[in-house]
Amino acid sequence: MSEIRKDPCSPTWVIVATERGKRPCDFAEKSQDEEEITSGKSRPCPFCGGEEVEAPFKAFSIWPGEIDKKTMDWRTRVLANKFPALRASAELIQEEVGGFYHFLSGVGGHEVIVESRRHADTFATMGRNQLEAVIRTYCQRHKYWHKDPRIAYVLIFKNYGLAAGASLAHPHSQLVATPIIPSRITQELEETKTFYEQENKCVYCEIIRTEQKAKVSRKIWENDTMFALCPFASRFPCEVVILPKRHAAAFDVLSDQEIKDLAQILTRIFKGIAAVLNDPPYNVMIHAAPQRTPGLLYYHWHIEIIPRITMPAGFEWGTGIYINVISPEDAAKALRGGIC
Amino acid sequence: MSEIRKDPCSPTWVIVATERGKRPCDFAEKSQDEEEITSGKSRPCPFCGGEEVEAPFKAFSIWPGEIDKKTMDWRTRVLANKFPALRASAELIQEEVGGFYHFLSGVGGHEVIVESRRHADTFATMGRNQLEAVIRTYCQRHKYWHKDPRIAYVLIFKNYGLAAGASLAHPHSQLVATPIIPSRITQELEETKTFYEQENKCVYCEIIRTEQKAKVSRKIWENDTMFALCPFASRFPCEVVILPKRHAAAFDVLSDQEIKDLAQILTRIFKGIAAVLNDPPYNVMIHAAPQRTPGLLYYHWHIEIIPRITMPAGFEWGTGIYINVISPEDAAKALRGGIC
Repeated sequence: MSEIRKDPCSPTWVIVATERGKRPCDFAEKSQDEEEITSGKSRPCPFCGGEEVEAPFKAFSIWPGEIDKKTMDWRTRVLANKFPALRASAELIQEEVGGFYHFLSGVGGHEVIVESRRHADTFATMGRNQLEAVIRTYCQRHKYWHKDPRIAYVLIFKNYGLAAGASLAHPHSQLVATPIIPSRITQELEETKTFYEQENKCVYCEIIRTEQKAKVSRKIWENDTMFALCPFASRFPCEVVILPKRHAAAFDVLSDQEIKDLAQILTRIFKGIAAVLNDPPYNVMIHAAPQRTPGLLYYHWHIEIIPRITMPAGFEWGTGIYINVISPEDAAKALRGGIC
Repeated sequence: MSEIRKDPCSPTWVIVATERGKRPCDFAEKSQDEEEITSGKSRPCPFCGGEEVEAPFKAFSIWPGEIDKKTMDWRTRVLANKFPALRASAELIQEEVGGFYHFLSGVGGHEVIVESRRHADTFATMGRNQLEAVIRTYCQRHKYWHKDPRIAYVLIFKNYGLAAGASLAHPHSQLVATPIIPSRITQELEETKTFYEQENKCVYCEIIRTEQKAKVSRKIWENDTMFALCPFASRFPCEVVILPKRHAAAFDVLSDQEIKDLAQILTRIFKGIAAVLNDPPYNVMIHAAPQRTPGLLYYHWHIEIIPRITMPAGFEWGTGIYINVISPEDAAKALRGGIC
């Protein structure tokens, strides 16, 4: 059972999850996962279409038509994580050590969202229909975890490529549901609330307005309901944020049109990133309001995409300040041009 | 000239430093630096003893005896960074874009601290006398930047190994002086101030007391004036914090005894890390109080050491919560045993 520990000197929480049974010296050698993903060789992939017995259906799936257990022609599937960082089957208890340190029992959710039957699919290549199914799956899982009163926050994220932390090559995202509101979200909520109180405007809505009229724009692309840009204070080269044009703090209220438009803009952006940066590793994170505050006027859900082509090092870890050697203006220009 | 940009949606600052003239597509291929450090082959190293003409003495140096320009038998040297993220030769100006975004001119300091004449030295092998010279150099540079009224914070850090962000193999640290207090430090100051106001105690002093009496201790080693532990909420496997036993918020007030003891404990810790984790890449950061508040009762300088053997990925970037698969209790046990 993992523990969610609070750092007494900072707002940081850490999930100590020792269930894989690793020892410190195991890190002295390359792991098997790493070998596999590096070499491209693999055991039969348990996420592939045709290998469903290896990772049986657990939580949810989307099918192009009727569910057909003979053809197993599913579009997306949601599985329990084999080594979950948090578990739903536990009681939420706050504990202390020595009257000084505090931790929570490791309650929460940890799921794998298999994005396609096809091992070689990527967000750049899988096509819009498939991406729409992925987004619908995200929304459904968001809604599902919303119902659990122990859960304070749900993060859906994607690690693509070894240098971005992916331990399996098959196209997949993950969901982690936590009983605490993460510090990054708390910080965004505080900052955006301050702006709202001063200006009576949502800061994200204001970003869209500012970029639409900017002389040197950081806009990459937009459609009727979605807007993609390289943020003014991009931490990483070619960092991208996708904002919905309609103000909404919760992610799982997407309309059909918004799902279509989000799939379209994601395809454009990932084709651009793959073209400009030669199919780099990347992380994708969906930031939305905490579970119990879906209707905030000052928060606005958004998607962060960070290509992992530079290395946060001692300066970034020590300060929380980032050094970015590519201006977001140049990055946006390249990503606009690189889009096929 | 770089820009220090404020993210409008979070407390994050980003230094946009485009002076290396990189373009996005440059990241599509392995850089020359990376090739060099990976292959171990290199041009004559400008930091080595005997190559001083390549990187002439700039700011400060420590010699075992008298300065001798013939033998050039220096212990440590401080050089200006070839591609500085910030520059002292500029005026500190606050600017805005479109009446909405804010940034500061890139004023500050960026230095390289060459830790030894010898290319193959590491913190685990260079010996205590050499490490004492390194610590004295850190103190001197901290004091030097203290005098500049435009500077709000000084971070000294070290990147060791390619996966920790080092672009040169020669043993070196860096100093960055910023005109803002970094968000990580602000967060630590807020959290430790709250603890002080509630308990009337410094939280770091309390950590030492708690670990000295703990049944299952996270202590690795201590001497008369220094204490090393794996923190209760370690973000990374085998993360280490070194705390001085004497409460001090400022780093540059070390006594001779504390410098000797710090060199001793650093040698022990880095020998342990090298033994247990097979000479891993790592980052070292010295956290001290901001320049204008050296005497805080609630803040306590400390050194953070993070072996870079796991990969922060989408979950960590999206939440600021870390998943650690090695408990700090197990890590401390291994590092105690691994120490020669």
